Amino acid sequence: MSRSNTVFIGRKPVLNYVLACLTVIKSRQDEEVLVKARGRSISTAVDVVEVLRNRFIPDIRIDDISIGTDEISSPDHRGPSNVSTIEIKLSR
Amino acid sequence: MSRSNTVFIGRKPVLNYVLACLTVIKSRQDEEVLVKARGRSISTAVDVVEVLRNRFIPDIRIDDISIGTDEISSPDHRGPSNVSTIEIKLSR
Repeated sequence: MSRSNTVFIGRKPVLNYVLACLTVIKSRQDEEVLVKARGRSISTAVDVVEVLRNRFIPDIRIDDISIGTDEISSPDHRGPSNVSTIEIKLSR
Repeated sequence: MSRSNTVFIGRKPVLNYVLACLTVIKSRQDEEVLVKARGRSISTAVDVVEVLRNRFIPDIRIDDISIGTDEISSPDHRGPSNVSTIEIKLSR
């Protein structure tokens, strides 16, 4: 899947990412969006999807939710550490 | 589904909930466990499931992941507010 329909969730306010999702959905013919997050941002990713479907696009479908683990190397730690990930695939 | 195979995720360390899941899985014949969380604990719920399957039970299956919204009334707020939820159903 190309990255152009992917919204990566970070530490900005929820509505910033809701707007990003709306922009993706309205700009593409296939009307799919993939919401991705890692670590503490996973909760925000769920907030984004819930706000999107409760307030903005009631007929949006959650096609798939998958979780996983990424290995990241940080200069603060000795060796790599693990971080959880989530991917939520939406379409309408 | 009865509550006896449900693990509610809160603010304790991840391994506490991993142990709770292991206890449920080993004590029941159907070997199912439902991991539930709300708000900021959603990230911890994903951590719990990832640690469980990467370190403890490699053959565990994620049968379903669903997200939703609960309305909660808090004495700190005027009127109800919304909180996101996650439910992760596991079996082996």
